[in-house]
Amino acid sequence: MAPAKKGILERLDAGEVVIGDGGFVFALEKRGYVKAGPWTPEAAVEHPEAVRQLHREFLRSGSNVMQTFTFYASDDKLENRGNKLSFTGAQINEAACDLAREVANEGDALVAGGVCQTPSYLSCKSETEVKAILKKQLDVFVRKDVDFLIAEYFEHVEEAVWAVEVLKETGKPVAACLCIGPDGDMHGVSPGECAVRLVKAGAQIVGVNCHFDPMTCVKAVKMMKEGVEKAGLKAHYMVQPLAYHTPDCSCQGFIDLPEFPFGLEPRILSRWDMHAYAREAYNTGIRFIGGCCGFEPYHIRAVAEELAPERGFLPEASEKHGNWGAGLEMHTKPWVRARARRDYWENLKPASGRPLCPSMSSPDGWGVTKGHSDLMQQSEATSKDQLKQLFDRSKSQ
Amino acid sequence: MAPAKKGILERLDAGEVVIGDGGFVFALEKRGYVKAGPWTPEAAVEHPEAVRQLHREFLRSGSNVMQTFTFYASDDKLENRGNKLSFTGAQINEAACDLAREVANEGDALVAGGVCQTPSYLSCKSETEVKAILKKQLDVFVRKDVDFLIAEYFEHVEEAVWAVEVLKETGKPVAACLCIGPDGDMHGVSPGECAVRLVKAGAQIVGVNCHFDPMTCVKAVKMMKEGVEKAGLKAHYMVQPLAYHTPDCSCQGFIDLPEFPFGLEPRILSRWDMHAYAREAYNTGIRFIGGCCGFEPYHIRAVAEELAPERGFLPEASEKHGNWGAGLEMHTKPWVRARARRDYWENLKPASGRPLCPSMSSPDGWGVTKGHSDLMQQSEATSKDQLKQLFDRSKSQ
Amino acid sequence: MAPAKKGILERLDAGEVVIGDGGFVFALEKRGYVKAGPWTPEAAVEHPEAVRQLHREFLRSGSNVMQTFTFYASDDKLENRGNKLSFTGAQINEAACDLAREVANEGDALVAGGVCQTPSYLSCKSETEVKAILKKQLDVFVRKDVDFLIAEYFEHVEEAVWAVEVLKETGKPVAACLCIGPDGDMHGVSPGECAVRLVKAGAQIVGVNCHFDPMTCVKAVKMMKEGVEKAGLKAHYMVQPLAYHTPDCSCQGFIDLPEFPFGLEPRILSRWDMHAYAREAYNTGIRFIGGCCGFEPYHIRAVAEELAPERGFLPEASEKHGNWGAGLEMHTKPWVRARARRDYWENLKPASGRPLCPSMSSPDGWGVTKGHSDLMQQSEATSKDQLKQLFDRSKSQ
Amino acid sequence: MAPAKKGILERLDAGEVVIGDGGFVFALEKRGYVKAGPWTPEAAVEHPEAVRQLHREFLRSGSNVMQTFTFYASDDKLENRGNKLSFTGAQINEAACDLAREVANEGDALVAGGVCQTPSYLSCKSETEVKAILKKQLDVFVRKDVDFLIAEYFEHVEEAVWAVEVLKETGKPVAACLCIGPDGDMHGVSPGECAVRLVKAGAQIVGVNCHFDPMTCVKAVKMMKEGVEKAGLKAHYMVQPLAYHTPDCSCQGFIDLPEFPFGLEPRILSRWDMHAYAREAYNTGIRFIGGCCGFEPYHIRAVAEELAPERGFLPEASEKHGNWGAGLEMHTKPWVRARARRDYWENLKPASGRPLCPSMSSPDGWGVTKGHSDLMQQSEATSKDQLKQLFDRSKSQ
Repeated sequence: MAPAKKGILERLDAGEVVIGDGGFVFALEKRGYVKAGPWTPEAAVEHPEAVRQLHREFLRSGSNVMQTFTFYASDDKLENRGNKLSFTGAQINEAACDLAREVANEGDALVAGGVCQTPSYLSCKSETEVKAILKKQLDVFVRKDVDFLIAEYFEHVEEAVWAVEVLKETGKPVAACLCIGPDGDMHGVSPGECAVRLVKAGAQIVGVNCHFDPMTCVKAVKMMKEGVEKAGLKAHYMVQPLAYHTPDCSCQGFIDLPEFPFGLEPRILSRWDMHAYAREAYNTGIRFIGGCCGFEPYHIRAVAEELAPERGFLPEASEKHGNWGAGLEMHTKPWVRARARRDYWENLKPASGRPLCPSMSSPDGWGVTKGHSDLMQQSEATSKDQLKQLFDRSKSQ
Repeated sequence: MAPAKKGILERLDAGEVVIGDGGFVFALEKRGYVKAGPWTPEAAVEHPEAVRQLHREFLRSGSNVMQTFTFYASDDKLENRGNKLSFTGAQINEAACDLAREVANEGDALVAGGVCQTPSYLSCKSETEVKAILKKQLDVFVRKDVDFLIAEYFEHVEEAVWAVEVLKETGKPVAACLCIGPDGDMHGVSPGECAVRLVKAGAQIVGVNCHFDPMTCVKAVKMMKEGVEKAGLKAHYMVQPLAYHTPDCSCQGFIDLPEFPFGLEPRILSRWDMHAYAREAYNTGIRFIGGCCGFEPYHIRAVAEELAPERGFLPEASEKHGNWGAGLEMHTKPWVRARARRDYWENLKPASGRPLCPSMSSPDGWGVTKGHSDLMQQSEATSKDQLKQLFDRSKSQ
Repeated sequence: MAPAKKGILERLDAGEVVIGDGGFVFALEKRGYVKAGPWTPEAAVEHPEAVRQLHREFLRSGSNVMQTFTFYASDDKLENRGNKLSFTGAQINEAACDLAREVANEGDALVAGGVCQTPSYLSCKSETEVKAILKKQLDVFVRKDVDFLIAEYFEHVEEAVWAVEVLKETGKPVAACLCIGPDGDMHGVSPGECAVRLVKAGAQIVGVNCHFDPMTCVKAVKMMKEGVEKAGLKAHYMVQPLAYHTPDCSCQGFIDLPEFPFGLEPRILSRWDMHAYAREAYNTGIRFIGGCCGFEPYHIRAVAEELAPERGFLPEASEKHGNWGAGLEMHTKPWVRARARRDYWENLKPASGRPLCPSMSSPDGWGVTKGHSDLMQQSEATSKDQLKQLFDRSKSQ
Repeated sequence: MAPAKKGILERLDAGEVVIGDGGFVFALEKRGYVKAGPWTPEAAVEHPEAVRQLHREFLRSGSNVMQTFTFYASDDKLENRGNKLSFTGAQINEAACDLAREVANEGDALVAGGVCQTPSYLSCKSETEVKAILKKQLDVFVRKDVDFLIAEYFEHVEEAVWAVEVLKETGKPVAACLCIGPDGDMHGVSPGECAVRLVKAGAQIVGVNCHFDPMTCVKAVKMMKEGVEKAGLKAHYMVQPLAYHTPDCSCQGFIDLPEFPFGLEPRILSRWDMHAYAREAYNTGIRFIGGCCGFEPYHIRAVAEELAPERGFLPEASEKHGNWGAGLEMHTKPWVRARARRDYWENLKPASGRPLCPSMSSPDGWGVTKGHSDLMQQSEATSKDQLKQLFDRSKSQ
């Protein structure tokens, strides 16, 4: 029998770097297994080989955490998003746990069960109702004995605190991430204050995920850290940003961008952008460093390669990747071989090849999402009338 | 027993649209299974599950052709690119054939064995030597009974003609693609003239692959078609372009771009660009329409969705994709639901989020590649001295 | 004898719009009469016809204020900037007053005598010394009986307050402008606080000029207005921004841009940008609206045309300009005639025709300028050694 | 009495560089004296001081040629463009000649009388009618004894040949410029063939002006030179391009750009672009080097500074301009002083400060202009109905 792995808190307490995984929803959408719009994870049951393969690629790339592919897998969400399948939320959550565990066992990775914000909260359901929804998903994680829990992708710190309170009841380590930037949550609560509330609610690890590009997210976590320290509290920090450049985003992040979600290609970060991100996150004192939407396995590998000196080893997938482009020494063309050096890639300003496109966008200006009449969640697809109304509004801006 | 599938020529003769697959080398590099620089396909033996999964994703996305993952799998190339593995070229080629066949059997796809240009030709070896190299790879394809053959990624029509001559000996249908644009091959032979030579050498299908973006490649194939028709010959046409915008490229295509191969992200085509490409290729009279480097499964799906009216059906993966963004009708945010319409995505000019980057690059100005002293291929990695020489030259431009 | 013109305060008290003039230094540099670097106004003596002509063009374009062309015409500056001419500061200032008065008399314009920040202040001279320098320039303005005074282009509110104190002694109306943005002066004093100090020192009109683009400057003046009102004080407001887009600038404004001063062309505002600026300034409650570096006569005309409804008349130069492009109705080409409409120009996103250039720059990060050892002013040109030192520093950033 | 100046042909025969002037129509539009749309030169009578001043600025900047400000001053044009003035074409042409001569006498410059294409030709009038129109304008030039003649801004070589034939009758030296790029005239006659026809018609100097950016124009003149030499003929060459970047233009040049004429600011060439242009033109063998629309005095000065080694002297206006930014050695800010060096400005890639704008435009696709029903010229302003028709057409493209 293999020796027990070190738990997430043991690792962080020891100062180790823990590398998260990347974005399942976006990666599997491009591979043909997730539908953009509903974004639900029924592929865990329908196409387990595809989910397993993606787990494996992240493991090979250096991930120490296999997050169960259970994003939006709460029953209220599955219903709301027009799920016509014969699978219950429980079935999906169970399958996702098994897949994560199977691959985690192939390497040095832990399994994290993840919950995220609920349509119930956005539709102004009560604390009790929201907690009941979260609890239901959690029951599977307990039964499947995941190694720790992550509450992530919360726009409102209030709901995130409720989630932490529910998760804490399991006795497992709890991480909590908001999908916010330096401007704070949807009601303007600052990152520092958000972090304090999450830590007080019992989260041992706090941070942000999704919605903004890496440097913006690191900045927000830095503000969290300063808030926690100022309050005399202690915590570990994590960051799992987008792999898209978002200099033009405000509070709702990339959701507001006109390119979301089907025209984001020109914003994808290169592996060299990831090196800079990993270094900045590390220097900021963040030790749980991963990714969210847009992160492909090679992005995670770049994070692991940047932090190889600190971790003491390269990820397995680096057998297929020369350091800072060194593999190009074997390229056929001599002028490409001349690019096998760090300063070349560090200083490159990559062109988009799109001379008719601007470099930045004017995002929609949405902010508060809870309680807004347009945001009351519904099971039906948006009707023609509703669409027309939204369209007219966007034109009049 | 399943009824025999229609062969490639039967399909094309009947006017059917045949959808190719996407780019294995680049996709598997990002997934951690191929090394950029050597670009060799040993993953077929080392990590068959990763190769199988990618085949499956393309099949689900609508591909009718599973190309064996044998790019650069000639023995001279494997040696030249520093391959220290215990696998022979034959082993890799065999494994690749088995994987392609296994997945092809899961749907309506054919298996195509592929060969490409050889280091031997670039190093000025004789016709006999080059043909011997190609023949060796071919033996496996015959033994494994692939459905047809593709000679692709040739910069020089002379070598491509040699390849067609070798492939023709098998009796199988032969397709031939150059990696050229409208300016013709590396010696300036026009696309029309190149196509005529290939058809005369026996290729039943001719076209271009790699090196340029879709619209540029379609333009080059159009010139091929005009050349063939003007010469009173007949052929079918294929196109398998990059999924990167290359308006700034000249004869060597994207290899010359400073972003190649590790900074190409901002150039990646969106699915909507792919719709335009598929329509343009179809209107030009091309019926074998696929992709090369940069094409991910969702790109192929977009091609299949655009041509669904002509083909009469949607690809399997469209179960996870609403037509022209229709899936967004189920998105949580109302302003994103308002994007669930064709004109929104067709007219979007996506920003790169990179205001410090230009929109176009100044590519290196490399042209002729055969025989140039810098291009004599070698087994060793580029030496420090060689690198310095190349670097000095690039600075002095 | 002509009836006496209404004074500046009478106009502003009556709620009239007063239109300033544009940027003499930059415009005359392009016409060949001012040297970039020293930026001194000896042309008033050397080439009066050129200065007179520019005054006239601004008058025709709608300006109600002829600022004497006396920028940097203090003796300490003239000496410091390597002025080898036989003209004294007094001679230059006198000639400039005569030219401004001559043209002002041709229309409904007032003459404003202008002083700006001194090298003496940057080199840490005492209040007494700085005030003496300013006083010397002022003597000419009093002798020539200008209509009012403007203290402008001050980076430090402290020096601006000193200037206002000196100017107040003349009994003439005093306007005071800092060259700051929303971040405040070089020591971080907020625009609101700066304005309060200037008003308390006796300035009847306060605002900002130079260094930032129009919208940024309007934002800074808005903050000034809020500060003044919050302090229970009263003032009039003015704004004379750059005619260059500066979204990428921080505290030192366009001086920090790598394009300053010889590569700013792609940033020049169009006349339509000026319409938006004039409207925004007006809506903010600013009534003295003009321009600084980069403003050509047609920019001022655009301001006057936008505010024609409020002013009740068009400027004289509008005899040569159709409203919102209406003149194009007489263009030879029909497709250009189709551009003779407001919505066309309002919605145009003009391209730069520079696909190898970025859309934004990384400005140098200079901030505090007073007292910094590099900023001690000297009469000699920068030496080779000094240049090398500066260059090395900029590279190491 | 001053010694007679050397004539234009004497200078060119001697291998001297002759520097032309810049663009009066665009410069005076910005100064408030010309109306965009009609573009007619009545300012020569109405505001002689403004025209005289611009001549003087070009003279100071190094121009050896004062072109009479008579663009579009043919009677048919003046009528067609809604000219309601009491001036005849003859009066305007006479005043323009006097102004050019007055300033030419102040330095080493010649006076060139200019004619350009006529509305009569575009409206398919006969050769006799077109020539009569041109002859009328010419009578003034003869009476005023200009030094030589320039037929410029012709889109069709046929009309340009007619113009040369008329001009030749005066016995004065004749220069002829088409407003074409490398694609040739509006009927596709190549630059080489155009030049041959013009030389055969009697033009001693041939070249191109307007419509394209400097490098494109130089390329077209190079093709002219090659055509003339191949035909065994002899000629001198001239080039007077736009001061706007036009990489995205096709046959109608900048007229087709959506930015024409009121949104061209971001395309304006810097003085450093002008250095590159002057050098390229000189190296191509062109010796009459000037500018057209967009050229301001400082652009001409840059041409004169680049060619100072060849000419042996700097222009007068260089007293106000340090070589390659040397004047900045006297700038207040040290980091700006560090920009006082050639390599800084030569390598700068200036940003536009417009992150929401593309770098290139999609020009309208207009080509042939003669005889097209939309191009029949009329005296009335475009009617509402005509505008609507044009607008609908542009939308349907």
